Amino acid sequence: MKKTKATAFHIPSVTHGIPAYEPAGQDSPPTTPERWLARKLLVLAGSPPLRLVLWNGEEITASSARILATMRIRHRTALYKLFINPNLHFGDLYTAGSIEVEGDFVEFLEAVYRASASKFPLLRKIQTSLFNRPRSNTLSGSSTNIHHHYDLSNEFYQLWLDKEMQYTCAYFPSPAMTLEQAQFAKMDHVCRKLRLRPGERVVEAGCGWGGLARHMARHYGVTVRSYNISREQIRYARERARAEGLSGVEYIEDDYRNISGKYDAFVSVGMLEHVGLNHYRGLGGVIHRSLTDHGRGLIHSIGRNHPELMNAWIEKRIFPGAYPPTLGEMMDIFEPHDFSVLDVENLRLHYAKTLEHWLLRFEQHTATVENMFDRHFVRAWRLYLAGSLAAFSTGCLQLFQVVFTRGADNQIPWSRAHLYETNPPSQSVKAA
Amino acid sequence: MKKTKATAFHIPSVTHGIPAYEPAGQDSPPTTPERWLARKLLVLAGSPPLRLVLWNGEEITASSARILATMRIRHRTALYKLFINPNLHFGDLYTAGSIEVEGDFVEFLEAVYRASASKFPLLRKIQTSLFNRPRSNTLSGSSTNIHHHYDLSNEFYQLWLDKEMQYTCAYFPSPAMTLEQAQFAKMDHVCRKLRLRPGERVVEAGCGWGGLARHMARHYGVTVRSYNISREQIRYARERARAEGLSGVEYIEDDYRNISGKYDAFVSVGMLEHVGLNHYRGLGGVIHRSLTDHGRGLIHSIGRNHPELMNAWIEKRIFPGAYPPTLGEMMDIFEPHDFSVLDVENLRLHYAKTLEHWLLRFEQHTATVENMFDRHFVRAWRLYLAGSLAAFSTGCLQLFQVVFTRGADNQIPWSRAHLYETNPPSQSVKAA
Repeated sequence: MKKTKATAFHIPSVTHGIPAYEPAGQDSPPTTPERWLARKLLVLAGSPPLRLVLWNGEEITASSARILATMRIRHRTALYKLFINPNLHFGDLYTAGSIEVEGDFVEFLEAVYRASASKFPLLRKIQTSLFNRPRSNTLSGSSTNIHHHYDLSNEFYQLWLDKEMQYTCAYFPSPAMTLEQAQFAKMDHVCRKLRLRPGERVVEAGCGWGGLARHMARHYGVTVRSYNISREQIRYARERARAEGLSGVEYIEDDYRNISGKYDAFVSVGMLEHVGLNHYRGLGGVIHRSLTDHGRGLIHSIGRNHPELMNAWIEKRIFPGAYPPTLGEMMDIFEPHDFSVLDVENLRLHYAKTLEHWLLRFEQHTATVENMFDRHFVRAWRLYLAGSLAAFSTGCLQLFQVVFTRGADNQIPWSRAHLYETNPPSQSVKAA
Repeated sequence: MKKTKATAFHIPSVTHGIPAYEPAGQDSPPTTPERWLARKLLVLAGSPPLRLVLWNGEEITASSARILATMRIRHRTALYKLFINPNLHFGDLYTAGSIEVEGDFVEFLEAVYRASASKFPLLRKIQTSLFNRPRSNTLSGSSTNIHHHYDLSNEFYQLWLDKEMQYTCAYFPSPAMTLEQAQFAKMDHVCRKLRLRPGERVVEAGCGWGGLARHMARHYGVTVRSYNISREQIRYARERARAEGLSGVEYIEDDYRNISGKYDAFVSVGMLEHVGLNHYRGLGGVIHRSLTDHGRGLIHSIGRNHPELMNAWIEKRIFPGAYPPTLGEMMDIFEPHDFSVLDVENLRLHYAKTLEHWLLRFEQHTATVENMFDRHFVRAWRLYLAGSLAAFSTGCLQLFQVVFTRGADNQIPWSRAHLYETNPPSQSVKAA
């Protein structure tokens, strides 16, 4: 497998551990029990409107609805693996080429999500609790987990992210916006929710490539300290702030648990997914000691409508240690410290739209990506982006933005109208 | 005790069970242990900036801050009762006249709330779990509990509520609004959040005197079925809808658990406080079976930042069975049925402002109220209104509006901007 040529930094392969690309099998035709197994697989998946084609060309369906797509299983081992742990093995088998999908890939994945969401929740629960526990997010565990994904290659992410390198849900008040416009609108929406005023101090936990910090400093006149344990992201963020002459932004290569100082605002966009349930009280403690009496906080995170682990394959191959919490689970951050939740907004469809843009851009650069990594990597990332899109568009994943203050703080706005004023950002935020 | 002359319906006295008004005590001077007890009482309350005056005129303080108010304890039994269970007995003793407060009553109560919120949370927890469990809200329990409060007397409530008889938190996008304007704005805010369209069917759980149902029918052209188990409220609501010629509104004297039919919207403003934690899943089930696939829901409820029982005296004398949930606890309604929470707004300060208006109007009618009931009733309701105001203004109580849809519903708006448009209500709601 080729390594990216773009950086001298060691990059762990995202497809590490996946079997080599497998050619079409030379297996003997399926037996009667195997045919039963294939049909059972569809039924246990909630009978999605899909056609299953076995390695000898035999077709199996379990739905009377209009067939949306075809999934080819190229050898019998793949069938057995799918049966044992579909959540985990589907991804590996697709990556390796042991499974092929014909038809619209996103539509195919949406059909699978819809069918499985509506049926056999207990089965899914047992399966995930047996096989698919997320990895831990201790200080060293987090470092390994974050390194795995975010240090892949800045050049790779630049191929398909917007120019501010926002790798989180954008905000499309109108769905016709470009990705660039929607990521600007997202950063601005966050700043308005935080009611930033010139001269204030902001701390950011998990800053990605530093775009939000630059936006806050540039448009709201605040000073920002941003924490991140991805070395590649920090390097990029520092270089860019220097190039743009932004002196009010400091990027710190350290864990959020080591945040020090007092701030008027705490913000975290897209980090909570990597924190782990058992560290929420701890995160709340960090915020508690960091915020001033009238400080405001915002946490933006992928979430769930009911407790459920991250898809096993995503957790194993793409985001080690990731877990999308329910709103109820998020309250473990706020309740122990008497924080008051002022505002929750669910931007689920905005993430589906964001992923639509990312997937489109990614597909325009697959030759470059294959050259940077290999064809397994391309297939794995196609599945990850398309699968995430399907999870948001079918309601299997949510995106929560939660705004909070200290429980006793009465310097809060009388309405949320200021979020929807059309003034330019730097003039839109008034004192509460 | 006098009964109200306004209705033939039997009215249970809200002050039932409270000892008769007690004159100033003729007790012997406090002993040294009693002086210690009095000081300990202040310390255990978090040392609020208050002066305690014992029955012989002796003064005790436990704070070096500027003294805000004076509390007179008129005999030794009152001191002992306060020590044993202050949350419950303060209210009864104040009602009976065994305690007097000099200075601003709301400021006094705010000082108590602030001090106790910051200190001895464990002590408070033990105290409430030992003495102050709320009553149950089974079908018959709810009926008794609701009857206790809401069937008191329509004429009494008319003295100090707005003309639409809204007995829930108003919405003051500008704090200078009148109560009338803010209650109209609240009803409209709820309708906009529900994205009501002409011809749609709405079901309401707990409709009070029916004002919101009338507003929805009049301004949004929907048909409404409103459930309520308070006979007096239903009688009033029906009469008023008839008088106003509103044919699209039906008031049903029945429990929310008996809601039948399918609806485009479910709304419940100020009922959840009376439902009880162990009935949340059941309430979710009622909503689940009542909403269409693209139905929207809104629950408006008093809440908490962390789990804590309703003040014991309020639960015992004013609102039997009441419990203000945390946001996390509210999720028991939504999670089991895969509802998706789209929007949460905390209107805590709006309830403090609402209560300011109510208390002011109440104080203007105390002579009439005493004539309707008696002087104990006046004191009890003064304490209830002022205490609630203090609880909201100090952050001990919250007000959550939660908007939700089915998890798989993609007919949701791209932003919340439609809530802040200035068009007249009937034109402000567009198709999603």
